[in-house]
Amino acid sequence: MAAFDPSRTYRAAVIGAGSGGLTLAVGLAGFGHDVVLIEGGDVGGDCTNLGCIPSKALLHAASSGIEDPFTWTRAKRDHLRNDETEEMATHERIALVRGWGRLTDHRSPHVVAVDGPDGPVEVRAEHVIVAAGSEPVRFPIDGLAAHRTITNEEIFELERAPRSIVLVGGGPIALEMATALADLGTAVSIVELRERLLAAEDPLVSSTVADALEARGIAVHTGTTIERFDEPTSTALLADGTKIDEVELVMLAVGRRPKLGRLGLDVAGVEHAPGGIVADDWGRTNVDGIWAVGDVTGNTLTTHGANAIGRRTVQAIALPRVPKVGGPRAMPAAIYSRPQVASVGLSVDEVERRHPAGRRRYTVDLASIDRGYTDDLEHGMVVVDVERFTGRILRAAIVGPAAAEWIGIFTMAIDHGIGLRKMFGTVHPYPAYAQAVGKLADEFTSDTLPALPKEFAAMVRGRLADRRLR
Amino acid sequence: MAAFDPSRTYRAAVIGAGSGGLTLAVGLAGFGHDVVLIEGGDVGGDCTNLGCIPSKALLHAASSGIEDPFTWTRAKRDHLRNDETEEMATHERIALVRGWGRLTDHRSPHVVAVDGPDGPVEVRAEHVIVAAGSEPVRFPIDGLAAHRTITNEEIFELERAPRSIVLVGGGPIALEMATALADLGTAVSIVELRERLLAAEDPLVSSTVADALEARGIAVHTGTTIERFDEPTSTALLADGTKIDEVELVMLAVGRRPKLGRLGLDVAGVEHAPGGIVADDWGRTNVDGIWAVGDVTGNTLTTHGANAIGRRTVQAIALPRVPKVGGPRAMPAAIYSRPQVASVGLSVDEVERRHPAGRRRYTVDLASIDRGYTDDLEHGMVVVDVERFTGRILRAAIVGPAAAEWIGIFTMAIDHGIGLRKMFGTVHPYPAYAQAVGKLADEFTSDTLPALPKEFAAMVRGRLADRRLR
Repeated sequence: MAAFDPSRTYRAAVIGAGSGGLTLAVGLAGFGHDVVLIEGGDVGGDCTNLGCIPSKALLHAASSGIEDPFTWTRAKRDHLRNDETEEMATHERIALVRGWGRLTDHRSPHVVAVDGPDGPVEVRAEHVIVAAGSEPVRFPIDGLAAHRTITNEEIFELERAPRSIVLVGGGPIALEMATALADLGTAVSIVELRERLLAAEDPLVSSTVADALEARGIAVHTGTTIERFDEPTSTALLADGTKIDEVELVMLAVGRRPKLGRLGLDVAGVEHAPGGIVADDWGRTNVDGIWAVGDVTGNTLTTHGANAIGRRTVQAIALPRVPKVGGPRAMPAAIYSRPQVASVGLSVDEVERRHPAGRRRYTVDLASIDRGYTDDLEHGMVVVDVERFTGRILRAAIVGPAAAEWIGIFTMAIDHGIGLRKMFGTVHPYPAYAQAVGKLADEFTSDTLPALPKEFAAMVRGRLADRRLR
Repeated sequence: MAAFDPSRTYRAAVIGAGSGGLTLAVGLAGFGHDVVLIEGGDVGGDCTNLGCIPSKALLHAASSGIEDPFTWTRAKRDHLRNDETEEMATHERIALVRGWGRLTDHRSPHVVAVDGPDGPVEVRAEHVIVAAGSEPVRFPIDGLAAHRTITNEEIFELERAPRSIVLVGGGPIALEMATALADLGTAVSIVELRERLLAAEDPLVSSTVADALEARGIAVHTGTTIERFDEPTSTALLADGTKIDEVELVMLAVGRRPKLGRLGLDVAGVEHAPGGIVADDWGRTNVDGIWAVGDVTGNTLTTHGANAIGRRTVQAIALPRVPKVGGPRAMPAAIYSRPQVASVGLSVDEVERRHPAGRRRYTVDLASIDRGYTDDLEHGMVVVDVERFTGRILRAAIVGPAAAEWIGIFTMAIDHGIGLRKMFGTVHPYPAYAQAVGKLADEFTSDTLPALPKEFAAMVRGRLADRRLR
């Protein structure tokens, strides 16, 4: 293990040992650099402790009938946390310092002041990477007792599934917890202020997901919020007049904000906005030698996003004069609810803004293809917006089984400039859901091949015809 | 609907209304051609009636606890069969003739003699497409009563899951039925003559699947066969000395052979071998105007294969002078067992033969990546063989969740010449299983980028480290 030496100037100091920070620390250490990793909370950050890992574990436990699902989930989380902590604590090139890092006004080397269990210390380093992460947005609800109010920071500490819960917010965390808790028998209500769930996704995605959740007995209230909570009767009173009775818990899942407060950004002159530290695709901030990756930047709120940018930051620091491998790529998003949701490409707004007219849209109802038929799937779809003539994919979204896995077909297509025209003829196994991709390519081709207008459409649909049999 | 007119010379006669035949009939009709579709059995062929559809339905019913799974499966099958039959019987350009088609020695037009419910008739057509399909290989087992012996042609007629079954053969059908029946509580034994299951797949695939099945309580006997069956004690005696007691049913699933017998191939001069009619990637046989697609050719034994070739045949017939869209592509295979298995690319033998030395092999254990950890996955893997320097994918195989869906990432890579080097940096959602694809690209890149040898390997592995925690 590498003991921290306050007299040394390290190659890099990393503030935060979450997805971004671990990528940087392990990556730079892999290039032979000595690194100080500064973490006041748990090694592994939100992903390991409060996010991806426990949520996926709880989803698995809930859907597979594992006994004591919360205990099991915590055991999974703790095992991984301990493993990552041990790895960092014993790494020969990484000195783990426990405490909260704060930038100072020193440059060359930069100095990070650390407060916390390891006492106030100063860490000197040529490069500082800020990877301090984000936290859930919290706000008071009129009348609601604190003991009933949780976020993703508390939910995995429950001993059992609540009898009922109101999830405030209709984003990824809410959908995953709705799925897991509904599997565990909780009466779940979702209350989303905007007019639809998953406001960052296509409206078709939102409506398909809402239909699917409602079919499972989850109540979806959109365009409203909890106006007041009546503790004596445990009733949530919504702004639209709806009453939700016998509410045991209320979970706030309305979004996340970067943890900027105690980072000393202004002292160090690091440009930032409420949405996060301003950093480019390689993690560069406006201050030479200070970098920022992950949720703290607002550029990404996912582990794979932090990892992708963090890997580029590692290269930029370790190999400043070597041509970089792997520039910015399409960034997918995935939600592991049931149905799963995944998307990739331009944002919905960007599609609208950059391609106001010159695009086509294709959709496939997964319930209408053969596998949807054998699986009795009721709600699932694929939607793509493509460049009008080439079929170049602007954005793709999937709602349905294993969406997070086969979104990669579209990610590859975007990264390599493969439009629907070129995807024509690619064979997907029968009767996989991914045959929908072939169907999209067929429809685009039949619409755009000048020589073969409508007859071709009939032909290419072939056996994989829409089957609306129920 | 189009009534058959024996005095007409049709544009095409299609022998067989399975996956290949339906593609041809619907496709050519879509181009405005009048087609005679000849079918002596059920419209939909093996896929709808005896294969993909009922097997996937039974797998779904078994894994989701649907009551009376066999009744439910038959209802699904019947609904689809009736739908396809109705579609063919009422199609304005397709005349459905019930009976068994046989080629004659007539050329230009070709004459197909049909025996069956619609009486002996002759069908005249410029083009004849033979899509007669295949049937399970059957053979007697010493001592085994006929009433205990089934194939995929009988299994879906069962009223309930048997208490115990021996599946003879270790291919796709056996694995899917083993999965469904094990879910339904049947004691399942697989007896495969070759040294491993799935002999057409990579040995690593075979061993991973065998481990997974055995972990679920399915007995796997390889390198042996049933030597004798003792009816009084219901015992299967294997050649290796093993006894399997209390066997209720024995299912033969050792392979399929093309239904060549009554097609009149020799009379018509159509070249064929025991493996099937000799046809090229466009369905052409040696006789002008006679085509063959699907299982009857031995070129493919899948619905998506029959569809892919059938679509090209449609183009070749309907648009002989128009440049073709969608030439031969990589042909994936998928098995919907648990774990799922999917593969694409050159055959295992071709990889060995064409690239005896100039290749690299990479594997990822899906149990060791983060999602495998949260899902408690025990058996799953990805293996790729790639061209040594470019990372061009020769063959890829996946064993694990949703393999049939995300094999498409590799299919796209093969179709578009995207090697592992170019796949480096493509972002897959955390924590999807498909992140294994990124890991393969990382490992290849770290092995082959001359500027960054070993340090890079450590870096690129980053957060998605192997986690062997159990």
